[in-house]
Amino acid sequence: MTEVEAKKPQESLQDRLAQVVELLHRHKLVEDLTHRQEGQHPDLVENLVHRQNLVELQRKLDDLHSADVAHILEALPLDDRLTVWQLVKVERDGDILLEVSDAVRESLLDDMEDHEILAAAKDMDADELADLASELPRDVVHELMETLDAQQRERVRSALSYEEEQVGALMDFEMVTIREDVSLEVVLRYLRRLKELSGHTDKLFVVDYDGVLKGVLPVKRLLVNDPDKLVSEVMATDPVSFHPDEDAYDAAQAFERYDLISAPVVDKNGKLIGRLTIDEMVDLIREESESEVLNMAGLREEEDIFASVWKSLRNRWAWLAINLITAFLASRVIGLFEDSIEKLVALAALMPIVAGIGGNSGNQTITMIVRAMALDQVSTGNTSRLIRKELGVALINGLVWGGVIGVVAYLLYDSWSLGVVMIAAMTLNLLLAALMGVLIPMTLVRMGRDPALGASVMITAVTDSGGFFIFLGMASVFLL
Amino acid sequence: MTEVEAKKPQESLQDRLAQVVELLHRHKLVEDLTHRQEGQHPDLVENLVHRQNLVELQRKLDDLHSADVAHILEALPLDDRLTVWQLVKVERDGDILLEVSDAVRESLLDDMEDHEILAAAKDMDADELADLASELPRDVVHELMETLDAQQRERVRSALSYEEEQVGALMDFEMVTIREDVSLEVVLRYLRRLKELSGHTDKLFVVDYDGVLKGVLPVKRLLVNDPDKLVSEVMATDPVSFHPDEDAYDAAQAFERYDLISAPVVDKNGKLIGRLTIDEMVDLIREESESEVLNMAGLREEEDIFASVWKSLRNRWAWLAINLITAFLASRVIGLFEDSIEKLVALAALMPIVAGIGGNSGNQTITMIVRAMALDQVSTGNTSRLIRKELGVALINGLVWGGVIGVVAYLLYDSWSLGVVMIAAMTLNLLLAALMGVLIPMTLVRMGRDPALGASVMITAVTDSGGFFIFLGMASVFLL
Repeated sequence: MTEVEAKKPQESLQDRLAQVVELLHRHKLVEDLTHRQEGQHPDLVENLVHRQNLVELQRKLDDLHSADVAHILEALPLDDRLTVWQLVKVERDGDILLEVSDAVRESLLDDMEDHEILAAAKDMDADELADLASELPRDVVHELMETLDAQQRERVRSALSYEEEQVGALMDFEMVTIREDVSLEVVLRYLRRLKELSGHTDKLFVVDYDGVLKGVLPVKRLLVNDPDKLVSEVMATDPVSFHPDEDAYDAAQAFERYDLISAPVVDKNGKLIGRLTIDEMVDLIREESESEVLNMAGLREEEDIFASVWKSLRNRWAWLAINLITAFLASRVIGLFEDSIEKLVALAALMPIVAGIGGNSGNQTITMIVRAMALDQVSTGNTSRLIRKELGVALINGLVWGGVIGVVAYLLYDSWSLGVVMIAAMTLNLLLAALMGVLIPMTLVRMGRDPALGASVMITAVTDSGGFFIFLGMASVFLL
Repeated sequence: MTEVEAKKPQESLQDRLAQVVELLHRHKLVEDLTHRQEGQHPDLVENLVHRQNLVELQRKLDDLHSADVAHILEALPLDDRLTVWQLVKVERDGDILLEVSDAVRESLLDDMEDHEILAAAKDMDADELADLASELPRDVVHELMETLDAQQRERVRSALSYEEEQVGALMDFEMVTIREDVSLEVVLRYLRRLKELSGHTDKLFVVDYDGVLKGVLPVKRLLVNDPDKLVSEVMATDPVSFHPDEDAYDAAQAFERYDLISAPVVDKNGKLIGRLTIDEMVDLIREESESEVLNMAGLREEEDIFASVWKSLRNRWAWLAINLITAFLASRVIGLFEDSIEKLVALAALMPIVAGIGGNSGNQTITMIVRAMALDQVSTGNTSRLIRKELGVALINGLVWGGVIGVVAYLLYDSWSLGVVMIAAMTLNLLLAALMGVLIPMTLVRMGRDPALGASVMITAVTDSGGFFIFLGMASVFLL
């Protein structure tokens, strides 16, 4: 992965996107006109304008950093996206494919012939190939592997042998290794013989003859120390290092905590087998927070916002179906009290307030707990203390807001006993929301699941059914 | 900011936290015993054990990286947190204060005397001081400023003059500057005269005699090129640079997109005034996703999970109060149809299903749009296309899930017309949810607000009131 020199962003990304869209629209307008005249003489002038627009668009795209082109592709609807994708120079296809999101990459790959994919992938590094392999046609992967030398092939295989969320799947192999018994002068001369250093080379890796990691030489120490000193005198002997089967998210947190730029990955025997870099970790941090948001809302995965209706449905159906069941259960709870509602129809109007506030409050609790768990601040050990605190918050909220709505209920329906039931039901439902807001994510974690998984749907299910039951039950006992 | 060499994390952070908690508990147990014997002879043996535990705990803490101590402080309840904080060596107070979250920092500062704060802050860099200044007692800030030299004081003032979300507030001043007309050999010798390079020095900044930025010399180019070459031959002349009044989040996205480690900040005349580094940007990326999650759930800010009940209440009240109003409005909508419910009590049991599924589906839409907006993929320009797609998804969901629940309603209440009203109401409410799921965040952005702000509360308000109105209204017209 070579670091491309990015253009100074005098114009914002939004501006560039707007320019591309503008050119696309001009292009399509002309195309429409030309189409309408089919069968007649194709108008030469319009064809010329057409071609000029495309040339201008292509020039615009050539000026942009691959990451910016990737961003523009993500922000375009499918047909425009494919028009732009056709205009991108073939030799940049690989870089751009690596930059776009999974959903968008799928749409681009669908549009490519096997030989195009092959051309795009042929300059990729082993770790990049491994990233893409699962999404490429089987034949193409096979053919690509044939073109690699033995070491590269071994690296791809090794990277593919790890789960997506393991360090091994994210490491690259662009590390510069040196020996500890040479002087810094020798290291400097060695580096000058290399044509270039890969991005994120903030340290060199010191290994022995068996490839076992002895330490790291930060480039900044290489620069400020006397060239006559030996590597062993200057290197750091106890660097933060990772194992390939470690959880990648833990590694990302370590990068964040210790402000790392790159770090060695070693196998069980301490042998250096790769390195992690901050750019991959930043991607991971972003993806992790994204999946938290998506999981809480009951979306299965990130969605290409211009995905087809059908793809969106697949992404959203699972949790909607679960929500349908929970909503049906809540409805049956109400069904139990139909007699009471018939006698006092005000209950029907007031019951959604109890359920709704409970849902909102429960969502606040669960959001906070999920966040704290993601940051490793909560273990199952301090559950009881957290529950006590949340119950305290819920009790006060219940008495205060329940009191407010109780007074309103009294004023509306002229029944002080209805007001009191309202206060009691609100308080009890908020206590239930607090309890479940702590217990649901804790239980999910104990079961080895993501604590955010459908958290919002679940807490709402509890506070709806629970709220209806508590309110209607108390009303039936005390008011009727 | 000097980069501290972090210990190899052989033990996970969770393990370390567990060890500290274990030592704390042993300590407290002994303290309790000693307390109970107050008035009697203090038991010498127990006092000894007590002191041993504290010494062990202190030794444990001394071994940990400041960032790890910060993490442990965040994960401890207030009383334990302050016990640990007292044990931390004074000279590390500053580093740790810079690492902890705002909420936790407040609790630590509350526990410190002015002279302790002064001691902790005296070795901080200008940018670090500026970060903390707003949270420190006014007297302390004043006294600190007195101890600074003119340049440092100017830097603190300048950093304080920017809003929290501007580049100027996040930049540091640790840049190494060189001239373009010297050879790389001269640069190498100059660097060796420095005692050390600050973290994240992946490039040197090339300036002219007026301090205007001419380019950057990436350290990796310095290392691989012939030392006889001039800086001007090797430097990159068009680097990504930022202005101090730019939006910091845009800068973070540029760091992510172009894989930057550091970047120059220049004023309007092109003069170099500071630099941004990836570690600050990573923090920002994390904070931004956090605030998205918190905003959607209606929490005002990140909460110290062990905050007092009172603090938690303040954080959560605003949105609960709004939710109370929206729930009340939904209740009044139901109130309009009390006659209908009295006649057909099944309506009371079925209406929450219509509202609930609408809320869930609307939350899915709004989550997706907010995400896409955060990634700059959606502009107000493609609103209509998005609305069309979301309406399509809603229509199919409404017909399918509405159909399922319609059949169930028919089976339960033996009324096919009730089933048909159910299908129609579900479909209409899902269409409403889709429309508002797109329009709410778009409108918030047009008003210059955060699109995630209370998004969940608002969409639920619409789907509740709307769902009740549609369902009960149709039932009143067609069934009664």
